[in-house]
Amino acid sequence: MTHFHLLLLLLSALITVSFSQKILRIFPGDTQITNGNREWINNDLFCDSWRLSVETNNAGYWATIPARCRGFVEAYMKGDHYVSDSEVVAVEAIYFARDFDIAGNGKDAWIFDVDETLLSNLPYYIEVDFGSEPFNETSFDEWVELARAPALPASLKLYNELQRLGFSLVLLTGRSETQRNSTEKNLLFAGYKNWERLILREASDIGKSALIYKSEKRAQLEAEGFVIHGSSGDQWSDLYGPPMATRSFKLPNPMYFIK
Amino acid sequence: MTHFHLLLLLLSALITVSFSQKILRIFPGDTQITNGNREWINNDLFCDSWRLSVETNNAGYWATIPARCRGFVEAYMKGDHYVSDSEVVAVEAIYFARDFDIAGNGKDAWIFDVDETLLSNLPYYIEVDFGSEPFNETSFDEWVELARAPALPASLKLYNELQRLGFSLVLLTGRSETQRNSTEKNLLFAGYKNWERLILREASDIGKSALIYKSEKRAQLEAEGFVIHGSSGDQWSDLYGPPMATRSFKLPNPMYFIK
Repeated sequence: MTHFHLLLLLLSALITVSFSQKILRIFPGDTQITNGNREWINNDLFCDSWRLSVETNNAGYWATIPARCRGFVEAYMKGDHYVSDSEVVAVEAIYFARDFDIAGNGKDAWIFDVDETLLSNLPYYIEVDFGSEPFNETSFDEWVELARAPALPASLKLYNELQRLGFSLVLLTGRSETQRNSTEKNLLFAGYKNWERLILREASDIGKSALIYKSEKRAQLEAEGFVIHGSSGDQWSDLYGPPMATRSFKLPNPMYFIK
Repeated sequence: MTHFHLLLLLLSALITVSFSQKILRIFPGDTQITNGNREWINNDLFCDSWRLSVETNNAGYWATIPARCRGFVEAYMKGDHYVSDSEVVAVEAIYFARDFDIAGNGKDAWIFDVDETLLSNLPYYIEVDFGSEPFNETSFDEWVELARAPALPASLKLYNELQRLGFSLVLLTGRSETQRNSTEKNLLFAGYKNWERLILREASDIGKSALIYKSEKRAQLEAEGFVIHGSSGDQWSDLYGPPMATRSFKLPNPMYFIK
């Protein structure tokens, strides 16, 4: 038994005690954790852990943010945190993208989602309390028609850099084909140019989950000869499902969930 | 143009300005972001965004934590944050698990990884600076032989609750078959009982990535008739790869990455 081993044993005992003292009150009843008012160490800590569970896809389906986290989500979205998280995703995507020798045949593709990926709907979500209210298709569609959503700056930089490197950029959105004009107008307003293709839901796609719809479109792109190196989206349903891109990049979004 | 629309347009302009002012310095050169000393709004903000990118699998492969994040990771692991994040994952798993009608034939399975999922190696990682040093197999194996890693309390509660509900618990670890005795001894020491099976790497599994090895073992379990409802692990290589569990639960781990 060396000194190193003795030290490890001592630390092991200390950590066990420390964990036990810190334990939170879980599994006490049937209240949904995400909307309950049960005790937690503190509200921001709970909401930050809830946010992590959303970003890692642990949370599963949810319709509105936890009522207790409204202020937390507002501070996150309007402050430096959201910007910083978005920037790190973009930088990691860039480092991955720079490793390729582009074939030069236009078939090296990168897929971008639109809402909360290229465009920020934060001005709209401020008005509907950061996801505290259930999604309202009517008022959101009115916002889409205004075509005034700003770019997410980190995504605009990534977009321009990928274009410089020679990637073909495919925009794949859950928006409807009837919103093509306003979507194109908004993308140009926000500074995006020269995409290879903008794919929207056609009549036959209505009613499909985003996961199925987007997987089908990726399969069609591959059938056309595209190699999908990267994919950027704020929802797991932008990224998951066969075929997947070589690398997927999950942008932050604690305001809403799309299946 | 309604008042609502005018308000949205105004907000849109404000958000655009606000984003632009907050923009961080990205893509300035070739320095790896994760180890560079480039300017960021502040160190903790950068490290928190780096941590999110690890937990969402955006970061890809990494061998050591960023040097600048050593203090951040220490504070995270030793403080309430790690405990809270672990608890929320466990609670979400429980809410999912309670929705099942268990078949009662012993084939309703839940898979647990061992290290940083059932057992905490924090006492060891304190000694190796929270992942600042490259993985040292020799000293880690010595720690494993001590069999004194404490339980992660949230995982122990989840484990016991799943057992109460009637799930068969399969432990699937990257540890070697030669560590079976010390692993069983440690699991019992930490309070885990009555697992259905403990699967370790056999000689033929050495050299496989964790992702391939664990996917193969899940396929074998399904071939035996198990239905894998849930899977808990701190690495994406515990969870990803066909076949996957119905729901996968990613536990936090900002200290190391396993392919």
